[in-house]
Amino acid sequence: MDFRTAIVVSCLVVWPAAAEAQPGVNGERLNEHLEALSRFGRNDQGGVTRVAYTEEDRQARAWVMELMRQAGLEARIDAAGNLVGRRAGRDAALPPIAMGSHIDSVPAGGKYDGCVGSMSAIEVVQALTEAGVQTRHPIEVFIFQNEENGQVGSKAVSGELKEAELELTNATGKTRREGTAFLGGDPAAIASVRRKPGDFAAYLELHIEQGGILDAKHLDIGVVEGIVGIGRWMVTFDGEANHAGTTPMDQRKDALVAAARFIDAVNRLAVATPGRHVITVGQIHVEPNAPNVIPGHVEISLEIRDLDRKKIEGLFQQAILDARGRLGAAIEFGVRKIYDNEPALTDDRIRQMVDAHARAMGLTTLAMPSGAGHDAQSIARLAPMGMIFIPSVRGYSHSAREYSTPEAITKGANVLLRTVLELDSRLPALSRVEGPGPINPRRSP
Amino acid sequence: MDFRTAIVVSCLVVWPAAAEAQPGVNGERLNEHLEALSRFGRNDQGGVTRVAYTEEDRQARAWVMELMRQAGLEARIDAAGNLVGRRAGRDAALPPIAMGSHIDSVPAGGKYDGCVGSMSAIEVVQALTEAGVQTRHPIEVFIFQNEENGQVGSKAVSGELKEAELELTNATGKTRREGTAFLGGDPAAIASVRRKPGDFAAYLELHIEQGGILDAKHLDIGVVEGIVGIGRWMVTFDGEANHAGTTPMDQRKDALVAAARFIDAVNRLAVATPGRHVITVGQIHVEPNAPNVIPGHVEISLEIRDLDRKKIEGLFQQAILDARGRLGAAIEFGVRKIYDNEPALTDDRIRQMVDAHARAMGLTTLAMPSGAGHDAQSIARLAPMGMIFIPSVRGYSHSAREYSTPEAITKGANVLLRTVLELDSRLPALSRVEGPGPINPRRSP
Repeated sequence: MDFRTAIVVSCLVVWPAAAEAQPGVNGERLNEHLEALSRFGRNDQGGVTRVAYTEEDRQARAWVMELMRQAGLEARIDAAGNLVGRRAGRDAALPPIAMGSHIDSVPAGGKYDGCVGSMSAIEVVQALTEAGVQTRHPIEVFIFQNEENGQVGSKAVSGELKEAELELTNATGKTRREGTAFLGGDPAAIASVRRKPGDFAAYLELHIEQGGILDAKHLDIGVVEGIVGIGRWMVTFDGEANHAGTTPMDQRKDALVAAARFIDAVNRLAVATPGRHVITVGQIHVEPNAPNVIPGHVEISLEIRDLDRKKIEGLFQQAILDARGRLGAAIEFGVRKIYDNEPALTDDRIRQMVDAHARAMGLTTLAMPSGAGHDAQSIARLAPMGMIFIPSVRGYSHSAREYSTPEAITKGANVLLRTVLELDSRLPALSRVEGPGPINPRRSP
Repeated sequence: MDFRTAIVVSCLVVWPAAAEAQPGVNGERLNEHLEALSRFGRNDQGGVTRVAYTEEDRQARAWVMELMRQAGLEARIDAAGNLVGRRAGRDAALPPIAMGSHIDSVPAGGKYDGCVGSMSAIEVVQALTEAGVQTRHPIEVFIFQNEENGQVGSKAVSGELKEAELELTNATGKTRREGTAFLGGDPAAIASVRRKPGDFAAYLELHIEQGGILDAKHLDIGVVEGIVGIGRWMVTFDGEANHAGTTPMDQRKDALVAAARFIDAVNRLAVATPGRHVITVGQIHVEPNAPNVIPGHVEISLEIRDLDRKKIEGLFQQAILDARGRLGAAIEFGVRKIYDNEPALTDDRIRQMVDAHARAMGLTTLAMPSGAGHDAQSIARLAPMGMIFIPSVRGYSHSAREYSTPEAITKGANVLLRTVLELDSRLPALSRVEGPGPINPRRSP
């Protein structure tokens, strides 16, 4: 019986029958923890400003570390400044099943982004501890540091964090190196936290959707197909700055009019093309940017996201081709890539488990991409990865208006718990002879 | 014989015959003075940074004051900080014929804007002095202070400068009050410089075109029909800032896409509508202005200029109507007026004089609006006003690339001289019994 058949059988036969015997999370406690966490850095708008490397971040992490211990995890701060909690399994030879997320926020953010997954991972362990369940695999819970400004902690674990990138600063003005030390890490030893492919049996992350799809469709659980890749470019338009009063309409080389037409055209392209890609022009810089001067230079950001790298490239090419065809000789047009992030697909068997457990609990599900980046993206380079989304009411995110209901959070945590348990029982011990690696590395090269 | 007939006769008969006897300006000296003036604040780009109220401005004004004296003018600094030079006329009862311009520049400006008119006005007087010509009317030459940041000096003379506006600062950080004192004026007595309608027999200003029309058409002299009025508005678009990765295209309220369509539409409206109006969106402000966030709020400037106030209003109404029709309910659209400047028409008889003298000199002319504001705009509230344009090569202005040929400058100064002389001989003494006022106040109410 191959693995896939095993799942189908488990879904149809084993789980529905066994569901009543399943341990469940304590939803009330979970939501209380979430509320308690939101005191650290709560702002006037009712949201949270807990930017990585602030005093609020450090204090919140100390509080979460204590929570880990109460849940039955051995907690420590690794050299990268991540909180790592570990609970032993019955088979010491097996690699751990990992769960995690982050608790740092953007400036003026919400109290759900990252926190729901962090509190739920700890709650899953506490529920297992209280139910007296010892898993075969060890369990590790990661509260990664500084997700919002570059997934610093998870990239340290996946080995993607480059030494030079430690000098980058975030909104606090601290460099990542300084911030890592501030959180209790040891930046000089940061390479020691790196894991190899096979070091995790699997990685799971529960997260709010940060978009309005589940909420609009009144669905409970998003079964994440993968984290979209991101292509980001700066597009420049050079015309000629000139006096807005003395330059007749037919003698103008107006860079802003050219940019405006491009913004309109790429939006129409995005809407007209079938698929779940998104295209955004979010940033614009105009020179000299005065009411009485014709703009001579405009720079805009162009961002395209999709699960399929080829789709991103195709949309980009079409946008540029359209623009070159439309812009006359009066405007000089330039493009440079500033960011490129590979899509990270979730493991298809984990997707099936998530979907089956949610349905067994009577929940409705939708397979969907994650348009936002997550720590799971980095860990997907080492292990089969799965992500579970719960609805964000009205899709608000990175804002005080971010909200998910306590019921939705509890449902998500229970799906997480059941998926961990099934992975624990079904996952073959990854033989060190065969060589470690993702079960089903469906990520693009 | 009415005045108009007199001009026609003078054009056709008197001037061509008398042209050889006319005093002329010394073009070499005029251009040397212009070059010498450009040393004050010359910048690395070969242009001039001589912002009002800087040390460079003050030193240049001291140098120009000496030049005025050498030309035969009694020179003084008035309470508003303007340089005023006066040469007596034969009839002490007559109001002066005034000429003027400014010598302050924008940051990183050119050496022609304002300076051509300033040096030419002084050269006209010097030529008269050297030719032993004493005019009937007194002659006054004004070098107004701070034209570039609000026509401060000329508005003090016209009485339009409000007390509260003295607290406004320019690029130097000095308030107008401080700057006026810095230049040797007496801000407490600034109201004393105010002139009444009728206090000037006429006002003339020679200026570079600051646009490319004369240069493109290879014409010598622009006979200015008036200074365009300016309507300026801030137009706001409010949508919803949201995550650029997680918000599907059909759920977006993208304020920048809406603004881009507006910018495109008003440009098409401006180009499609017959006339010499100009419409410019020069400034844009986007929030939060990040590549990965859908813009929630955009603010743009909208500026419309035309000689006809009704045309400005009509174009504005159409732009707004179009936008309201096109924008859906997702975007909230707002407009507020931020600036409103009346058109100031030139006196039609002075236009005819300028045109006739230029043609008599073998020069080609074009009747045209001034798209830029000038000190003449304020003085037009007190007296019949005329402006003479000379070509700006390639239309560059407010830039180191600003350039007018020495020949063009000399031609313009000679047209100015001849117009002064004709005004002096033709203007009726404005009777104090009839009441002073513009000869032909064709300005809009």
